[in-house]
Amino acid sequence: MDRKILLSEKDIPKQWYNLAADLPTPLQPPLGPDGKPITPDMLAPVFPMNIIEQEVSTQRWIDIPEEVLDIMYRWRPAPLRRAIYLERYLGTPAKIYYKDESTSPAGSHKPNTAVPQAWYNKQFGIKRITTETGAGQWGSALAFACQLIGLECKVFMVRISFDQKPFRKFMMNVWGANCVASPSMETNAGRNVLKEFPDTPGSLGIAISEAVEQAVMDKTGKTRYALGSVLNHVMLHQTIIGLEAKKQLAMVGIKKPDIVIGCAGGGSNFAGISFPFVADKIHGENIEIIPVEPAACPTLTKAPFVYDHGDLACMTPLLAMHSLGHSFVPPPFHAGGLRYHGMAPLVSQATVEGLMTPRSYHQLKCYESAMIWAKTEGTICAPETSHAIAAVIDEALKAKEEGKEKNILFCYSGHGLMDLSGYDAYLSGKLTDYQMSDEEIAKNVACFKDMPKPSNKKTGKW
Amino acid sequence: MDRKILLSEKDIPKQWYNLAADLPTPLQPPLGPDGKPITPDMLAPVFPMNIIEQEVSTQRWIDIPEEVLDIMYRWRPAPLRRAIYLERYLGTPAKIYYKDESTSPAGSHKPNTAVPQAWYNKQFGIKRITTETGAGQWGSALAFACQLIGLECKVFMVRISFDQKPFRKFMMNVWGANCVASPSMETNAGRNVLKEFPDTPGSLGIAISEAVEQAVMDKTGKTRYALGSVLNHVMLHQTIIGLEAKKQLAMVGIKKPDIVIGCAGGGSNFAGISFPFVADKIHGENIEIIPVEPAACPTLTKAPFVYDHGDLACMTPLLAMHSLGHSFVPPPFHAGGLRYHGMAPLVSQATVEGLMTPRSYHQLKCYESAMIWAKTEGTICAPETSHAIAAVIDEALKAKEEGKEKNILFCYSGHGLMDLSGYDAYLSGKLTDYQMSDEEIAKNVACFKDMPKPSNKKTGKW
Repeated sequence: MDRKILLSEKDIPKQWYNLAADLPTPLQPPLGPDGKPITPDMLAPVFPMNIIEQEVSTQRWIDIPEEVLDIMYRWRPAPLRRAIYLERYLGTPAKIYYKDESTSPAGSHKPNTAVPQAWYNKQFGIKRITTETGAGQWGSALAFACQLIGLECKVFMVRISFDQKPFRKFMMNVWGANCVASPSMETNAGRNVLKEFPDTPGSLGIAISEAVEQAVMDKTGKTRYALGSVLNHVMLHQTIIGLEAKKQLAMVGIKKPDIVIGCAGGGSNFAGISFPFVADKIHGENIEIIPVEPAACPTLTKAPFVYDHGDLACMTPLLAMHSLGHSFVPPPFHAGGLRYHGMAPLVSQATVEGLMTPRSYHQLKCYESAMIWAKTEGTICAPETSHAIAAVIDEALKAKEEGKEKNILFCYSGHGLMDLSGYDAYLSGKLTDYQMSDEEIAKNVACFKDMPKPSNKKTGKW
Repeated sequence: MDRKILLSEKDIPKQWYNLAADLPTPLQPPLGPDGKPITPDMLAPVFPMNIIEQEVSTQRWIDIPEEVLDIMYRWRPAPLRRAIYLERYLGTPAKIYYKDESTSPAGSHKPNTAVPQAWYNKQFGIKRITTETGAGQWGSALAFACQLIGLECKVFMVRISFDQKPFRKFMMNVWGANCVASPSMETNAGRNVLKEFPDTPGSLGIAISEAVEQAVMDKTGKTRYALGSVLNHVMLHQTIIGLEAKKQLAMVGIKKPDIVIGCAGGGSNFAGISFPFVADKIHGENIEIIPVEPAACPTLTKAPFVYDHGDLACMTPLLAMHSLGHSFVPPPFHAGGLRYHGMAPLVSQATVEGLMTPRSYHQLKCYESAMIWAKTEGTICAPETSHAIAAVIDEALKAKEEGKEKNILFCYSGHGLMDLSGYDAYLSGKLTDYQMSDEEIAKNVACFKDMPKPSNKKTGKW
């Protein structure tokens, strides 16, 4: 019986997998303000060119630089574990395997892209990276990466999280980053908001605007911006999760999992665990691939596939994705990492292509699942991860009903040690579920009517 | 190059090692109020008899029950890692290996004894365990163990930590434990203190009294007390750390380390990493074994080896140990796990026997070492662990000076994710060092003059 399946350093994947090479129809391009596809050089003030090249690449395999691997050996290869204690508790014939991304120093999968992003910036001669963070997972991962690689790191953290989660800021400080509450007085975007709303709790949209502004306005040209999810190069970097998992499953004789599950906010940990198996599915394998999102922010399950901006201030290009509208403000719930209005274009298009079967869960069921996990497997998961676990439990019980020995694989995207106040709110009975009504969604997506539409030139469908 | 040395489940040690079997002179027995050695049945209201048997055992090897291993496979065997990034930073020829005990669900080495203690209690028919906790590491480890094994768990948490570290309580709640601030209104000990000092911040001494009282006063006889350090059976359970490390070092061709280091508060993680190597030292191997304590609580380095109580209220038997006096209140510093007035009798006696070379460090140097660790190895260590790291850095630099390729092994006893406010205090310049004066120590240990003295009947020394 194999509870932990451990890959040695020498067997770590040496290339990332790019799903853009295998999608049945070509990925819809990002569009500029004029509705025309943007060119790489238009992104140059924001990202270094070596990352832009990855963003637009359709090459199937992209080499992972040896120096990037050397940094990531601190925690990679990550263990694949079998959730035998949960299996026993459920009495299921299913075998549940999970890729444990909580073992990174920052506690989640985010360093898988923070490290290469920081490294490529450094290679390109950049000295300083700006970013935004909501709950703090991404900000601490980038702080960690910049510390190891020798770059300055500036994080704009949404004011309400900055005040409520001081520990995340302390983490970033330990790794040498400068973390300020957003909106701040350091940018035009921040000052303008503060003038009008001095008591604003802030938002990811404002924080993105501040981070981008500080990157593009640096006259030395040595500052760039970094994003922790949504974009193609982020999905690319995260595929190391699924590529390792595939090798580890093979070590215990499993050619392919029957079901692959990940929680999905912007889409990065989900893409990471699933894309290598999406490739197999495109080539004929029978694999069910399930992104799990919160019922209170139902991007893939309820929102249309459209062209929309990535941020509130419409500073980003238009991306073809499932979106609840860039002005959508999700109701408060504790999985901060799943509160994004859109979904990664690669995940969105794969969904439209019929390669994914997304579903959503309410937060109370997710916390209930997290509690089952804590009392069986023993660890305290991130609130985001609990969404994946809720689906895993349902699928394992379904396998029990059907009497089938399915192999289920999921991504344990992070631990919940920095999110214990959410557990406290749940245990104190302070949490409720929130279901978005169809009217609310319709109202939000009305803004799309005058925007360009994604179009499938190959089949004319969608 | 081996950055991670991973032991498979089947190679996990199947027995604990008991240093009491190999000490050059027999371990000094605990004494009762009359100054005579206590008998096992005198401890029966406090601990279950199967644990008392381990406490007094002089058997060299004691089987680890298969069911205990089955529970611990959730995180054991723990990885042995090589701190290659720290080595490079220091430019040392030394090889630095560390046993990563931060990978347990509770984040430290404490579950190594919490699990067997809970299991033996359950076997003995006990339904409920009481304990105290200071900073919260031990309370959360016991909550975790009781949850998995199916026991009620009641934790008395020192009031000031209860108020300042709510997240530790939330953790215990997730694992189903009942955690209350001490002093509480639930016990005579607590009520008496509160009557006189309603605003007391509490202390470990009071919390121990409350936990023991609630255990011995339960009329059903189904409640017992558990202690997370100091006692012989706790040291025994922790030896799995060093036994695993020995196998893992052998996997990379290292027959014995040159230096073994662990931080020492009550002594348990230090005993865990070192005792299997102390055995080799007793049998002639040349190994330097270094317990590291805070300069502000210098038990092994400054305090005498005496008979003293384990608690403020003198409810425990007299133990032969290094002690600053049971009424000693250490000055505030952030390594809460190292603030104990005494030291495990097994560690103390091994020190008196000349098997250990203890040293102490100030907290500023320890935080400085923790920051070096964070920017090289990448992880954020517990404040306790930073004491070990400070010594490791010194020893690695000494090896550099000497030009010697030494093998250094240390115990990375826990992560610091629940202790980030200490880092914040350090980075904000709010911490200072505190050196205990010889006068203070002399004043504290004056209480020993009328107490029984440990005596070495074999050699007459000490």
